[in-house]
Amino acid sequence: MRKLALLADRFNTLWMENGAVHMLNRRKYPFSVEYVTCTNLEEVAKCIENMTIQGAPPLAYAAGLALSMLAKEHEMDSESEFFTAFEAGIDRLMHTRPTGWDLGYIMAGCRDIARKAYAENKDVSEEIRKYVYSQIENGNRIARDTGRYAADLLQDGARIQTICFAGAALAYTLYFAAEDGKDIELFACETRPYLQGARLTAASCVEMGIPVTVITDNMPGYLMESGKTNVFISTADKITMDGYIANKIGTYQIAMAAFDNDIPYYLLGYNGPDKNSYGPDSLVIEERNPDEVLHCLGMRTSVDGVRGYYPAFDITSPRYISAVATDRGVFPPRLIGRYLDKPYLDPFTNPRYI
Amino acid sequence: MRKLALLADRFNTLWMENGAVHMLNRRKYPFSVEYVTCTNLEEVAKCIENMTIQGAPPLAYAAGLALSMLAKEHEMDSESEFFTAFEAGIDRLMHTRPTGWDLGYIMAGCRDIARKAYAENKDVSEEIRKYVYSQIENGNRIARDTGRYAADLLQDGARIQTICFAGAALAYTLYFAAEDGKDIELFACETRPYLQGARLTAASCVEMGIPVTVITDNMPGYLMESGKTNVFISTADKITMDGYIANKIGTYQIAMAAFDNDIPYYLLGYNGPDKNSYGPDSLVIEERNPDEVLHCLGMRTSVDGVRGYYPAFDITSPRYISAVATDRGVFPPRLIGRYLDKPYLDPFTNPRYI
Repeated sequence: MRKLALLADRFNTLWMENGAVHMLNRRKYPFSVEYVTCTNLEEVAKCIENMTIQGAPPLAYAAGLALSMLAKEHEMDSESEFFTAFEAGIDRLMHTRPTGWDLGYIMAGCRDIARKAYAENKDVSEEIRKYVYSQIENGNRIARDTGRYAADLLQDGARIQTICFAGAALAYTLYFAAEDGKDIELFACETRPYLQGARLTAASCVEMGIPVTVITDNMPGYLMESGKTNVFISTADKITMDGYIANKIGTYQIAMAAFDNDIPYYLLGYNGPDKNSYGPDSLVIEERNPDEVLHCLGMRTSVDGVRGYYPAFDITSPRYISAVATDRGVFPPRLIGRYLDKPYLDPFTNPRYI
Repeated sequence: MRKLALLADRFNTLWMENGAVHMLNRRKYPFSVEYVTCTNLEEVAKCIENMTIQGAPPLAYAAGLALSMLAKEHEMDSESEFFTAFEAGIDRLMHTRPTGWDLGYIMAGCRDIARKAYAENKDVSEEIRKYVYSQIENGNRIARDTGRYAADLLQDGARIQTICFAGAALAYTLYFAAEDGKDIELFACETRPYLQGARLTAASCVEMGIPVTVITDNMPGYLMESGKTNVFISTADKITMDGYIANKIGTYQIAMAAFDNDIPYYLLGYNGPDKNSYGPDSLVIEERNPDEVLHCLGMRTSVDGVRGYYPAFDITSPRYISAVATDRGVFPPRLIGRYLDKPYLDPFTNPRYI
């Protein structure tokens, strides 16, 4: 059996210990493997904002653990003081990164748990931690099952274009496809300005023994038109009920290039759409510090007098997406809303019907 | 009158003095303004290969001046020795960068001049220098006239997406549009791996007082879909008779995004198509050292065990191009072959009909 990438299991990179939240510093990985310790909610919020932790599910889990710390801090408060502080904490975390789906989901879950635990006189902090851990466990299962379905979509000889780091499900997709005996290679966009592709994706492939080539973000179109790649895989930070997605800036351009060259684009959809989002206008695009765009690995790339602009995501229409792999199977993008009604069947013990 | 950018006049950045070729180091500009001195053909060839000088016309002029140095070096040779060395020099230079049109054109011109000058017992080196200088002068005129036509295509309120450095004609386009009183802004892709957009294009705008925003290469699609930009301008290293182009890698992706968002794409076509090229298969895509892709400003962007791949150009179909501005007026891309039959009329003293 080949090794799985470090980032495939979220417990490798995020946990609570002695009341503090520990996380892998994804801004430095894989050049160095450093863990950051956060002792209060604000420190976690800052780590989410500056991308010490990134990816829609992982940052949502970190935010949940931040609420566990906050609950501990306020455990001697009166009920109204406690919940005022708790709601202010949720509000702070919700403002860190507005685009992804998971953050709102985990925050709502933590709120329910906190109210219930408080009413039942339980240790609120510990109940939240247990809830978030169960979500991480479930998230790992979702990533693995999604990867199992997505691996079936890859042909022998797949030359896979990807962007940014498509998360644990990408690691599982490559892992299962390779274990199934398929000849696969990955082409990772470096993904400026933070280089998640050159760092996280490329390192994960090296860890798993999957051949990987890094290209700059202007190259995917040419690789498709010249036949170097024959399939595109990305994830999405949010999927609407009718199949529009927000994902890492640059996804839209590659999706069009895939379409123009008759190349399939498979989305790693994890646990499906946001049941409250319809159409592209329901997607909020985060704008980050423009100065980041004018730097690479800390070095300035342009001269004084030049502005930067840093939208972190773009929107892709379902017309460019071929299929969405989730933990409940594979869906046509415009019908991804049906995910919500589809029962879960373990793909490892059942036939993997579409 | 506003100032013109340094790069608008090619004599600012390339000339012969005391038998040596001097050129601006475009790998360092604008962080530092350094000039490199080449004393023989091989040094010029290396400067072309490593992009100390870049852009299809400028590098072709430098190659011409390299032949002038070579002719001087061999002036005491017998005729057959002289032309053997001369043809070997042309061959060396032709192998530096295979994609652009201008290099072959200038090399052929130098060959004709050399044979004629030799037959007439003239100073071959000096005749070649004079020929190349006349070509630079003509090239400056072509860039200025192309810019004059292209400026007319820009609306008041133009928010212009561009890629790489579209050369002297881009500087003139912006200059004339601004002098005509139009409110314009430029959005420059940084253009990895060498950052010509963040460096050359952005600096040229700052020099001319044109507002400029630098973005990473994955962002043009989103800027178009969100309405931040409303026109795309690039140049081409080669244009076929039926309107296919080879240009800086990334052009194709942006052209598709412009098309998808109903945004015009205007090409700065300088002196038109290559009369011997038809269809996309006639375009040769240069592949450069893959290691360059794994670095930014000298710093490594990925881990060991990762490959790079560096195609320097891509191919764009005329179906994505709205119009081609040249020094002889504006053409529909599929009819760019008609450029060759169209008489030149000075756009500054004649009405600028399409």
